[in-house]
This record gives sequence, C-alpha cells and structure tokens, in this order.
Amino acid sequence: MSPKLTGEILRQLRQAMRNCKYFSEPIQAYIIPSGDAHQSEYIAPCDCRREYISGFNGSAGTAIVTEQHAAMWTDGRYFLQANHCLCNETPSQEDWLISVLPENSKVGVDPWIIAADQWKNMSKALISAGHCLVAVQHNLIDVVWPDRPERPSTQLRTLGLEYTGTSWQDKVTMLRAKMTERKIGWFVATALDEIAWLFNLRGADIEYNPVFFAYAIVGMNTIRLFVDLKRLSHPVLRDHLQLDAPIKPELSIQTFPYESVYTELQAICAALGPKDKVWICDKASCALTQVIPKAHRTPIPYTPLCLAKAVKNATEIQGMKMAHIKDAVALCELFAWLEKEIPKSTVTEISAADKAEELRSQQKDFVGLSFPTISSVGPNGAIIHYRPLPETNRTLTLNEVYLIDSGAQYVDGTTDVTRTVHFGTPTAFEKECFTYVLKGHIAVSAAVFPNGTKGHLLDSFARAALWESGLDYLHGTGHGVGCFLNVHEGPCGISYKTFADEPLEAGMIVSDEPGYYEDGSFGIRLENVVLVIPTKPKYNYRNRGSLTFEPLTLVPIQVKMMNTELLTKKERDWVNDYHRKCREVVGAELERQGRKEALEWLIRETQPIV
Amino acid sequence: MSPKLTGEILRQLRQAMRNCKYFSEPIQAYIIPSGDAHQSEYIAPCDCRREYISGFNGSAGTAIVTEQHAAMWTDGRYFLQANHCLCNETPSQEDWLISVLPENSKVGVDPWIIAADQWKNMSKALISAGHCLVAVQHNLIDVVWPDRPERPSTQLRTLGLEYTGTSWQDKVTMLRAKMTERKIGWFVATALDEIAWLFNLRGADIEYNPVFFAYAIVGMNTIRLFVDLKRLSHPVLRDHLQLDAPIKPELSIQTFPYESVYTELQAICAALGPKDKVWICDKASCALTQVIPKAHRTPIPYTPLCLAKAVKNATEIQGMKMAHIKDAVALCELFAWLEKEIPKSTVTEISAADKAEELRSQQKDFVGLSFPTISSVGPNGAIIHYRPLPETNRTLTLNEVYLIDSGAQYVDGTTDVTRTVHFGTPTAFEKECFTYVLKGHIAVSAAVFPNGTKGHLLDSFARAALWESGLDYLHGTGHGVGCFLNVHEGPCGISYKTFADEPLEAGMIVSDEPGYYEDGSFGIRLENVVLVIPTKPKYNYRNRGSLTFEPLTLVPIQVKMMNTELLTKKERDWVNDYHRKCREVVGAELERQGRKEALEWLIRETQPIV
Repeated sequence: MSPKLTGEILRQLRQAMRNCKYFSEPIQAYIIPSGDAHQSEYIAPCDCRREYISGFNGSAGTAIVTEQHAAMWTDGRYFLQANHCLCNETPSQEDWLISVLPENSKVGVDPWIIAADQWKNMSKALISAGHCLVAVQHNLIDVVWPDRPERPSTQLRTLGLEYTGTSWQDKVTMLRAKMTERKIGWFVATALDEIAWLFNLRGADIEYNPVFFAYAIVGMNTIRLFVDLKRLSHPVLRDHLQLDAPIKPELSIQTFPYESVYTELQAICAALGPKDKVWICDKASCALTQVIPKAHRTPIPYTPLCLAKAVKNATEIQGMKMAHIKDAVALCELFAWLEKEIPKSTVTEISAADKAEELRSQQKDFVGLSFPTISSVGPNGAIIHYRPLPETNRTLTLNEVYLIDSGAQYVDGTTDVTRTVHFGTPTAFEKECFTYVLKGHIAVSAAVFPNGTKGHLLDSFARAALWESGLDYLHGTGHGVGCFLNVHEGPCGISYKTFADEPLEAGMIVSDEPGYYEDGSFGIRLENVVLVIPTKPKYNYRNRGSLTFEPLTLVPIQVKMMNTELLTKKERDWVNDYHRKCREVVGAELERQGRKEALEWLIRETQPIV
Repeated sequence: MSPKLTGEILRQLRQAMRNCKYFSEPIQAYIIPSGDAHQSEYIAPCDCRREYISGFNGSAGTAIVTEQHAAMWTDGRYFLQANHCLCNETPSQEDWLISVLPENSKVGVDPWIIAADQWKNMSKALISAGHCLVAVQHNLIDVVWPDRPERPSTQLRTLGLEYTGTSWQDKVTMLRAKMTERKIGWFVATALDEIAWLFNLRGADIEYNPVFFAYAIVGMNTIRLFVDLKRLSHPVLRDHLQLDAPIKPELSIQTFPYESVYTELQAICAALGPKDKVWICDKASCALTQVIPKAHRTPIPYTPLCLAKAVKNATEIQGMKMAHIKDAVALCELFAWLEKEIPKSTVTEISAADKAEELRSQQKDFVGLSFPTISSVGPNGAIIHYRPLPETNRTLTLNEVYLIDSGAQYVDGTTDVTRTVHFGTPTAFEKECFTYVLKGHIAVSAAVFPNGTKGHLLDSFARAALWESGLDYLHGTGHGVGCFLNVHEGPCGISYKTFADEPLEAGMIVSDEPGYYEDGSFGIRLENVVLVIPTKPKYNYRNRGSLTFEPLTLVPIQVKMMNTELLTKKERDWVNDYHRKCREVVGAELERQGRKEALEWLIRETQPIV
C-alpha cells in the first residue's frame, strides 16, 4: 500500500471523525486495533482495518489517528519493520494520547474490536486525564473503505473421533462440569479456535487458522451456536451436530445467525436470576462483555475451553506426531533440493518458500500453511517476522545464512519449525551465535521441572548462554500450539514477559525457539515444537512429580553451523540422541514414501558429533 | 504463649466484636494482620497483636476471628511451623471468609495496620459476596490486651557523610527532582526504613531493624517530620537536622508529634489545588491513604526513596564490604571454636547462636543482630525459619548437619549469611543435596545478564540442578539488603513469585540463598550477600551493557559437604576463586586482629579443590 493512498484515507478518516452522522459530538482521536470481533491473531481481509489505514501489515499493532497525528504501536517482534513505518514506540498509547490531545477530548473506538480489558485500562487512563473513551458503533474505517471485502463463509469440515479423541458432546459435558464447580450458569465463547475445538468443526474463514466466524453460548440445558446459517445445510454437518435428531435435550444445539449474538445474549441476561453468573473471557470484545450486567459478569483470563484445549489427549498427541513426521519428510526433501539448486543461483526466498509449500502439499491430509513462511537470507534474517516480498526477495547463495520458519496445517495436526542453515562456509561468529542459540534450545528442551511450574520460569534457560557472551534476543521463547488449530494459542508459553500464564501440564504442546539477530547481517532461530511429558528423576520432592519436554519436530539441526567445542558433553549427547530419533522415525517414513535423495540427506545430516 | 490463654483472649475478642461501644453495629469477623502502621516486616512488642491473639510468632501471617472460627494464613516459609498452629492454608482469606460468614456480614479491620492495596482487594471480594469491610478505628486487640507495651522511643543516632555518602539535604533534593519530573507536589513517606535513610538517622525502636517510628511529608518547599518530639532534644541531632538554623528555607524541617500525621495530612490535602498530586506507596496504611482524596492520590508500588535507597553509593558499598569482612572474622572464629567444642557435646543451637553474637559484638561498630539467628541441627534445619527455643534446642554433634543463618547490624553495613556444615561425616545424600544447592548458588552468583533484567528471571538458575533430580525448595532465592538498615528491603529480589520487582541495577545488593529441606531430617541453605556490578562480556548486544554479581559475604563454604564430582570445571573454578578471595581478604583482617586459630581454620578450609 503506497504512503500516498494512506494519506488520502487518513484525510477521509479525519473527516469522518468530525462527521456528526456517526456520533452526537465529533471525536478528537480514533483508535484502530489490529483485531477482529473475536480478538483473533490472524484476521480475515474484511477485518484488516488497521492495515488499510496504516499500510503496516504486521500481525500485531494498533494505530491511533488524531486531528494532527497518526501513530502506531507494534510489539518487539516487529521492532525493525516498524521503524520504517508510521512512528516509533516508547510512550504507551494512553500516555501518547494524553500528551497530544486537547483538553476534554473524546477518543473513539469500535467496541467490537477492542477487548474488554483493554477498554477498561484505556478508559481509566483517559478519564484520569480529563478525556473520555467513546464506543463508536459504526466502524469509521468501514466508512472510508469503499471496496471492503465480505466476511468469509467457507465450507465447514467435521472432525471425527479418530482426530479429536473426544466428541463435542463430551466436551460440552466437561465444560458444564467446570461451570457447576464454579457455580456459573452461562458461558459465552467468543474465541474462534475455542468454538472450533468445542464442536469438532474446522473452517477456512481466516488464512492459516482453520476456524470459522461464530459465537457460542452454553447454558446448563441449552447450547446456542451463532453462525452464518447457510453453512449448516450439508447433511454431514447436520448429522455431526445432531441438529435434526438430538439424542438428549440438553445436548441439542440451537442455531442462530452470526449477527444475532448481541440480542440473544441480551435476552439471556434479561432472564437471569439475581445470583446467576455468566463466564466470559476478559479478552472478549468490549461490546459483548458489556451486554452482561456487571453483577452477573464473571470475567476470566482464560476460559475452561482454552485450558482444556491446551492439554492434548492421546489421539491428538498421536495426530500431532504424525503431522510432524510428514512435515519433516517435506523439509528433508526441501533441504536436499536446496543443496542441489543453490549453486545455480536460481533459488530465492520466495521460490524456496513456494517449494516448501509444494513439498508439504504432497503429504497426506495437508490443508494449508499454518502461518506465512519466513524465508530469509542474510540481513533479512535479522528482521524477526520477515516475510519475503518481491521488493525484498534475496537469492539463496553459498555465502549467507538462510533462516526458514514455516509450518502447516494437516487434518491430524499443526506444525511450526525453524531451521537456520548455511550452504557454504559459515563465519566463526555465525557459528558461535548459532551454538549459543542451540545451547539455549537444548537447555529448555532438556529441562526437568516440577509439576505446577509456569512456562515463564524456563525462559532464562534459553538465554543463559547468549547472556554470558553479552547477547540476547527480543522475543519470547515459546508459544502454545493447537492441534489442527491456531499455531499460536494460550494459555501457556515461555516468555520473559510475566504474563499470567498457566502452569505447564503433561499433554501441553509449546514451541522452543530461541534466536539471535545481528542487524544488517544475519538471523538465527532454532525452533522445535515440544510436548510436555511426565518424567521420573531420581527423587520426587513432596510427591509433586516432574515434567520435561519431548520434541515433536524431527528435522536435523545443521551440524555445520555448530561450534561443537562450545558444547558440553550433555549437549552433544542431546544432539546425537535427537538426530538418532530423526533418522529412525523420519527415515522410515522417507523410505516408505520412496524419497531416496531426502533419505540420503537425512542420513548424512544426522551423523553423530564428537 | 499457652493455648489456654489464647482461648480466653479469643473469647474476650469475640465479646468486643459484639460490643457496640466500638461501632454502630456488631461485626461478624475481625481481621488481625501481622503488621504495624508502617507495614514493617519486624514489629515492636506493642504491635505484636496477631501474635498476642494467635500465639503464632512467625514474622508474616494474618489471623481472622469470626464468631465461630479462628484461622491463620502464613507464607510458604512457615509451612512446617504453621502446621502446628491454628489452621492450614489453601483458600484465600477472602474465599475462607465468604465460605464461613452468614449473609450480609460486617468484617472489621484496623485501617492503620492494613495496607491500602490489601484493603482494596479484600473489600472488593467481600462486597461481591454481599458482605462489607469496615474500618474499626479502635483496635480490638488493644481492647483485650491489658498490659500492652508502650510504643518505643529509643535514642536516635545521626550518620555522617563517611557512612552515608549523601547528605539528607541532597536526598531531599533528589526526591524533589523525581517529584518535579512526574508533576507530583507532595510525597508521604510511611516506611520506617525509607524515613531513616532519607534523614540519615537510625533508631532502635524495632529489634533487628535500626529504625524509629516516624512519618515524613515532603512538599516542594517544606519538609515535615512526625516523630516523638522528645527525641529531638539532643544538640547533635538538632544540628544534624539543622532544626535551629536551616541554611535554606526549602531545606528547613518542621517537626510534629508522631500522632499528628493524620490531621496534618488532612490540612495539606484541604489546601491542594485541583491538579495537585500526592505520592503515597500502595502498601501504606489504608487509614493514611484514604486521607488523600482520590483525585489527588497517586499510589505507587515503590516510592522513589525505596528505589534510590536500593542502589548503594560508593561509600555505602565500601561500608557494606567492611561490615562483611568483620562479619566473616566472627564466623571464622565461630566455626573454629565449634570444631573444638562440639566433641564435648556442650554446644547447643542456642549456645552456638549466642557465641556467634558474642563474637560479632567484638567487632568494631557492632550494633546488634540483623534478624533472629537461625541455628538449627538435623531435623530442625528443615524448618525454614526455625528459631531455637529452649523446648526445641538440640545439641550440635558429629552426626547431624548444622545450619546457621545469621547476620548483624554494624554502623557501616548489614550482613546476612547462611552456612551449612557437618562436623563429622555427612551422608552421600546430604552431600548430593548440598552440591545441588551449591550449583544453584553459583549459577545465580556467576550469572551474566543484560541491564534491565528483573531478578525473578534469575530464580530458575538457582533451582535447575535441584529440579533435574526432582528436588526443590519452597522459598524465594534472594531479597534486597539495606545498608545499616533492614535486612530485607525492596524493590528487587530473586523469586519465582513474579511480584512487580524492579530491574536489577549496578549498586543494588541482594542475597543469593537457595536451599534444600528434607523434612524430619536436615536442612541445607547457602547464602551470600552479593553486589550487582557491571561486567563486560565478549559482545554488547544493542549497547545494553551487562551485569553480574560480586559476593560481599566472604565465609568459606564447607568442602566436606561437597560431592566435587558433581561440579563442572567452571563451578570448581568458582569455588576456588571464591575461597582464594576469602583467604586473602578475611585472612588479612584475622591477622591484623591477631586471631590465630581462626586464621588457621580459614587457611585450611580454603584449600583449592580439584
């Protein structure tokens, strides 16, 4: 998007901010969060309002437009990229607004795309400075966006027990048990992945995330699903949801149009008894949250669905393992192919990413990518969430480090893997940094920790080797990974930010991805998806039990990039054990699929180090 | 205190709770926090209300008495001890109250001894359950405590620049600069150590903490000190505070009686302009906080005094180093003496603690202990905050582990050191556990980390070796240490609890004290006080700079307790470097003091390990 166009749109938006058609009094500032009404991380084209107004296409970030200024906030991952965009960080959104606004200003925001907790903080800060936050029902970006796309309504896919391990009926029953335990009468589900997980359904409304636009409200005797009703006409779907012949009345699903969630929730709330409580996530939209009268509202940081979804059952774990083996097959094939092709100077960041997608698509039950492939050469690798574009596209050579962070959705699971490789001879500094990152990766992956430990307590393990040499990376170490669902999911993660994460539990799946980024030169990241598993160390203090990780990702880590002298014996043993497992498990599948070159590559790349 | 007596007091308290002399309507529950009006950790006898009512003498904990129940909450450190007391934990105070109270109950608390943030949380929870929290101006424990001691008013000691490095006038000027920066007109100081630090004064009102009962209110042109005025009569003191001939009007101190802080703050607040802001710590008493109208109140988690006090200047660092050398002399002497005496079976936990105090008191500028000595043999060592009493007193033998955690106040600094030793032959398990604790201690002490790192990110380093074997300890790893001030101080620390700690900075001083406790058998803890210092590793990512720790404590760590085979080369080097420094620095002082036996012991105990 050209800066010129953005300038014209800004002018139109400022006009809308003064137009009394949309509110009783003009507003002096308008906040454009990056999310949709479900606080999704990835969003559909119709919801890319912040990108439309700012031209910034990073996945996180908020733009604020005042009469005089336009500013944008991004998270640390976009540090480098955002420098080229609207503005730079430091002050909080609240502080910035307070510093630029005239007295008694009104700040507008669409209540459907701001989360309730963000609204609360922003409103409090503005009020304390004499301003106020105003819910603008009519989205002002939509006003100035003539050709805004339609909300998608893709075909829904049902998932049987062979993929989910638990029927949606059993999930509803488990949810109700949690509700009974906490004396809660109603639960409002707004996160798209939670709704997809609950009903064992998948869609394709949002790229990379196999979800569909919907809301659900579950009471002790009723289940209401809000979704474009046209999508529910197929007999397989009607049968899956038992829409025409429910077995038990309390497991009968009532369906409503997507848009009617507001009025339906209003009707439910109007009929509440004085002690009835409604659960809603504190990250749900302000609009929907405020429908529930405060006395009945019980906001929670993580819903019971989010917590239940995070702990994978045996079927899901088996599916995730299968998906990772298929994914490893594709990547072994990719790396073998790259080795052959790179000397010809014909492979670019984009064509390598395309090749990776092509190879993955040959695997059984492939659905699509799980996020945009980060395929980056040399200095582009230092841009943490880089995505190759025609104007930045570099050719892979024998002289620069290549970083590829990619993943796919298969019907049986979701993958996310990063490897950093050199096809010629890496410098001593590149190897040194790679080795520190590897040490950090191993320190997390091999960590043993008590049950009940929160992921953020493991973050420093990933950094210790880098810190010791004065290095670091400005992103977290890991995120939860869904099973044929969002590649980023709560409620657990591994980060120096002490968010209110939930303790790690056996069955949870997270990524382990430390990195190092030398601006203008190269980027290194090493990422496996790992499963939390119980382990039995020598002792068992207070019978708490211990946990560790099992890597699900089984792709060789390039030995050429390692300075093995910097590794301890324990670390070398870890590398050799890991590579042995890659060879055995992925080798068998390569053999089965008759992919000889990739098998040879795998065998060569997994030779023990000494 | 006998359980019988406690029962009678409980009966009287319940009578007071029903007595309308103290409030318009009876209350159904009364909360007795453990603190005083300054939220001190250690408190004067007149403020030991929770101990009086409950008989529990741990330093942290809250008792709640209802018409039917009496319950007590303690922190993890008292886990074992509290098991023998009123009740056990799990539910929060709020949840417990809600579960036992009849509908529409009134819960009383003295607003002077509950912190503003605690009041807020408790009040919110009670209101949401249909109850209410009531400020009872008349403390009900005082009502049933006929022989309650008087509030102490000990002689004040002035500290010159040779100890403080910064005059109180400069400290006030620095405070005002911070206030100007944040557009704050007034600051209310309520923490006793902050007031002592600000005015370069010390007292002895509270055992172990060289503080005095006072409040201070600093405006841009006035300084008000609230203290028992009798204490300010000495000419040295009047001169130090320039009470009779202030050099500049804005550095003139107005003195007021201690009790008049409430009315004086009311008067100040009555005269505030519409935009005037008053800083007060959110941990200050509810009573004083609520004097400030909400529109003018700016609560802060840590005051600028707390932050400034934590970063020691060159004079304070030099003083702390001197204090630690003297302290090491006393401990070398103690251990040499114990080695001789223990075979005679005449030394007990209490007599060993007394001997340690006697030896410390021989050192220059000794003032007193910095906390009650934990002197514990065998199973008593597993009680984390054990304090030997005649009825628990064990004899030191050649067969059991001995743990001594002790420290002193010297005019030049505060010490806190824990050593765990065996005078006979430790078991393989005791050595193994000791070695894991040592590995954790070294991992923190030798850690290199970027500027801006918060202490809690280092906590897992202290636990990794224990975790790997399925072990752990249920307390934090370190706390801030004052300079001739409180042995526990904010705003930094090293703990798995992600409290809102401030980043570590060069000049801060904290403890590093991992442990392991085998219930019923032994306790191990290894504690040094360490100084945060800048360090220059190989690289300097984004010019952030790096930090590490320098041990101030210089007392040998018993090699006999180590299983050196479990140590890495780096860890063995650390032990040898540390012991060399102990030998050189403390050896020179032992030589100077002519303490031959202790010197021989030191030389023997600091031989290099291989």
